[in-house]
Amino acid sequence: MSTTFETWRGRFERLRAHKAFELTVITIIVVSALLIGAKTYEEEVSPFQEWLLLLDTAVTVFFLVEILIRMAAEKRLRDFFKRGWNVFDFLIVTASLIPLDDSEMVLLARLLRIFRVLRLVSMIPELRMLIAALFKSIPRMGYVALLMFIIFYIYGAIGSFLFASVDEKLWGNISLAMLTLFQVATFESWATAVLYPTMEHYPYAWIYFLTFIFLNAFIFLNMMIGIVLDVMQKESLAIELESGEGEAAELHGLRSDVRRMRDQLSRMEALLERRDR
Amino acid sequence: MSTTFETWRGRFERLRAHKAFELTVITIIVVSALLIGAKTYEEEVSPFQEWLLLLDTAVTVFFLVEILIRMAAEKRLRDFFKRGWNVFDFLIVTASLIPLDDSEMVLLARLLRIFRVLRLVSMIPELRMLIAALFKSIPRMGYVALLMFIIFYIYGAIGSFLFASVDEKLWGNISLAMLTLFQVATFESWATAVLYPTMEHYPYAWIYFLTFIFLNAFIFLNMMIGIVLDVMQKESLAIELESGEGEAAELHGLRSDVRRMRDQLSRMEALLERRDR
Amino acid sequence: MSTTFETWRGRFERLRAHKAFELTVITIIVVSALLIGAKTYEEEVSPFQEWLLLLDTAVTVFFLVEILIRMAAEKRLRDFFKRGWNVFDFLIVTASLIPLDDSEMVLLARLLRIFRVLRLVSMIPELRMLIAALFKSIPRMGYVALLMFIIFYIYGAIGSFLFASVDEKLWGNISLAMLTLFQVATFESWATAVLYPTMEHYPYAWIYFLTFIFLNAFIFLNMMIGIVLDVMQKESLAIELESGEGEAAELHGLRSDVRRMRDQLSRMEALLERRDR
Amino acid sequence: MSTTFETWRGRFERLRAHKAFELTVITIIVVSALLIGAKTYEEEVSPFQEWLLLLDTAVTVFFLVEILIRMAAEKRLRDFFKRGWNVFDFLIVTASLIPLDDSEMVLLARLLRIFRVLRLVSMIPELRMLIAALFKSIPRMGYVALLMFIIFYIYGAIGSFLFASVDEKLWGNISLAMLTLFQVATFESWATAVLYPTMEHYPYAWIYFLTFIFLNAFIFLNMMIGIVLDVMQKESLAIELESGEGEAAELHGLRSDVRRMRDQLSRMEALLERRDR
Repeated sequence: MSTTFETWRGRFERLRAHKAFELTVITIIVVSALLIGAKTYEEEVSPFQEWLLLLDTAVTVFFLVEILIRMAAEKRLRDFFKRGWNVFDFLIVTASLIPLDDSEMVLLARLLRIFRVLRLVSMIPELRMLIAALFKSIPRMGYVALLMFIIFYIYGAIGSFLFASVDEKLWGNISLAMLTLFQVATFESWATAVLYPTMEHYPYAWIYFLTFIFLNAFIFLNMMIGIVLDVMQKESLAIELESGEGEAAELHGLRSDVRRMRDQLSRMEALLERRDR
Repeated sequence: MSTTFETWRGRFERLRAHKAFELTVITIIVVSALLIGAKTYEEEVSPFQEWLLLLDTAVTVFFLVEILIRMAAEKRLRDFFKRGWNVFDFLIVTASLIPLDDSEMVLLARLLRIFRVLRLVSMIPELRMLIAALFKSIPRMGYVALLMFIIFYIYGAIGSFLFASVDEKLWGNISLAMLTLFQVATFESWATAVLYPTMEHYPYAWIYFLTFIFLNAFIFLNMMIGIVLDVMQKESLAIELESGEGEAAELHGLRSDVRRMRDQLSRMEALLERRDR
Repeated sequence: MSTTFETWRGRFERLRAHKAFELTVITIIVVSALLIGAKTYEEEVSPFQEWLLLLDTAVTVFFLVEILIRMAAEKRLRDFFKRGWNVFDFLIVTASLIPLDDSEMVLLARLLRIFRVLRLVSMIPELRMLIAALFKSIPRMGYVALLMFIIFYIYGAIGSFLFASVDEKLWGNISLAMLTLFQVATFESWATAVLYPTMEHYPYAWIYFLTFIFLNAFIFLNMMIGIVLDVMQKESLAIELESGEGEAAELHGLRSDVRRMRDQLSRMEALLERRDR
Repeated sequence: MSTTFETWRGRFERLRAHKAFELTVITIIVVSALLIGAKTYEEEVSPFQEWLLLLDTAVTVFFLVEILIRMAAEKRLRDFFKRGWNVFDFLIVTASLIPLDDSEMVLLARLLRIFRVLRLVSMIPELRMLIAALFKSIPRMGYVALLMFIIFYIYGAIGSFLFASVDEKLWGNISLAMLTLFQVATFESWATAVLYPTMEHYPYAWIYFLTFIFLNAFIFLNMMIGIVLDVMQKESLAIELESGEGEAAELHGLRSDVRRMRDQLSRMEALLERRDR
């Protein structure tokens, strides 16, 4: 019976590695994405409601089968869960399996199914690499984000103390004030909808807004330049080392060759001089 | 008769290569562009209507003649169509020749004539190089564009499920939702016209918008930095190799020189020692 | 008595250097920040008013004790004030101590307490480094800022002379005009709220706005590129020098080795030739 | 008499080179700028009207005297006009001298006086260098600007043909359409004020706007990256050459040293072998 299992495992492994299998999965993901999209055109698609439901169930079943095949192809089940992207796929597939037929829960069920589109990322190696690169750049941005949050917090507190009486909706408490400041930071109606109404009560409010904008722009600019230079320095160091290493080794070898020659010459000179005496 | 043809072909080739011919074509393109522009001031130009029509026909005929001359200058007609820019010119010229006198089609005919301005790109070498450089950078951006599209699609689906009841025009279906999200991504009235009206019904809608904006900005920033570093690395590698090759060859030659010297020295030492014995 | 003082100084120094002490201070700073934030939700927090007041006093006392400990840990008090960040902490703590119980002054007292959040910057080394890097980049941007100010000033003067009659609120005097121009520079409603109303009276106003936008964008772009290149050049020069120095020294040593060998060979040749005669 | 003139010329030359003279000129420029600014607060400054007029005349006279001194300091008047910045100063000073007392012309006279602020640029060496750097970067951007203009022109023509009926003010003719497109390119109310009203008549108008935005962003991004890489390549090539030259020379010298040694060795070997026979 173990051999039967092994035979099947081998078959599953070949299936998983097959290019056509991959393409089928990608096609199904795209179809499932289009299905989700189609559902948003509610009125127009009502006649096809049943067809869509059927297709949706088919996609769900296919994804379940696909992930089971990929699990069966592993020698040990543990190995499957060792790769982050497999866990990612597993969570997405199981989440869409939860039976949420309750009319209340139908929205949640739909939302969970949307994330199946994300499986495209785990299927295409180039996208996986992109995501990995994005994750690597998070720590580099961490402290700048903390600094920015502190600035938003301080300006938010000042804003909600000073301007709460001007516009309760914009400056009512620190969360609303920080949201308003984010709007200001994106330059969206910051002057017409935020600055000018405030300046009618506090004519010097422009100091608050201009310092905030300049501080933000200044930190953002420096962060951008810092990151570019930081990564570049590492790259060029790596290139230097790589191209420099060969040359340095060559130079080193040359020098020891020359030194051995000098020793030889010294021995020869001694011989010649001895005979001369 | 073949000689006559050859003589004419030679004449056309000289004409095509002539600087004055090129300048005339560019001038005619600019005139044709101004003609198109003039036509948009409909009321003011009605008295000159006939003149404009005449000029337009003249330009069309000139372009036809010009492309026929360039075709005749080739040894084989096939060679003409081998260069992409020639095909581009040919399509633009023939498109403007299609007789669309029907009052319904007059708009289409005008639109087709607008693209004659694009011939400026195929006439000026620097612009041709610019366009070539732009085309080369497309694949590099492809996967980032795909990733961004996936994010837009997922957020679009979520948005149209959640907020369709708030504003049918902005979130009615997934296409409208994605268009709204593009508006949010460009920061255009994203807070005053999109976020705040939504927050009146869903107080936590800011999570949806802020994660979307941060995700977008984060990917965009990383893409920019990635491209700059990617191209730079290639450039500096090329420079390193170029300047390094000469040096490496020099070093290599030097080392083999030194080795040959050591062999010679060893032979000499052997001679000296032999005699010493 | 001096020994007792010394013992205590040593204890304080150990306490200050302790990781747990640092973490406690950071925690208190965050709590104090949350307190400030909570105060902005005035209505909801009134039942906890007394608790908040108590906590606030506790935080103030803690900060006072903490800074006294850090002062006592120094050998001489002067040393404490030699480090910029200590002065920064001292000012923030003393500012929050000023008794402002007057109902008029309660707002100012609150504002002064907000700046206690900034102590997070002086506590976390990474943030301190970020701020130091930001300060270093100020002079580099100084002259570009001056140039931009001149452009804003000239356009502001022109704008307030020409358009004051169109919209007193936007162009009434040079300060208002410069604020309006800053709004234009951030692209906020620059066309719908500023350009189009102006063009109704001055149809050629677009020349003023477009030249301003292009000039601004042009200088800003050049500044960005300039800074990136400036810093990069320094970095790569430093790397070149570092990696080049070792190689240059090796080459130099090699050359003097070879020269000494040539001298030796000349001596040997002279010996051989002498005997040959 | 010639000696008297020479003595005076020397005095003027020393005066021009004096640091205090430079500082005085800069102070006067700033005062003159503040004067212009003060004039924009018309109502508030009316009591000081006469004082301001007096100060203004004094500044004008001072600038005239200053430029005459700098002219007199040159050996030949021609030399003065050879430097671009001198011509720039001369034009600004003479422009503010034109008597425009006519009430109609008073605005023009004021505008001409504003440009005196620009003399700050010609007085401060760092700003002069900045401006020189800006001018140098213009040709690099020229062809990209031309390409962008072609795109604006084509989209402007298409827009004014298609959408003129939707909004005469935005799309009435090609100039208005191009201005609207510039507004779209800066993302100012592009969706709420331009796209959505258009989509009510042409549901597929989003294709026009999205292609325009993507095309623009794509070219702009590529231009930015292109410029950075272009300048960087030149810089790093220059650095490479500089640091590489010394090393290459050293290597070259080393190799010729080694070759001469080999010749010497060959001669010695010949000697030894000859004697052996």
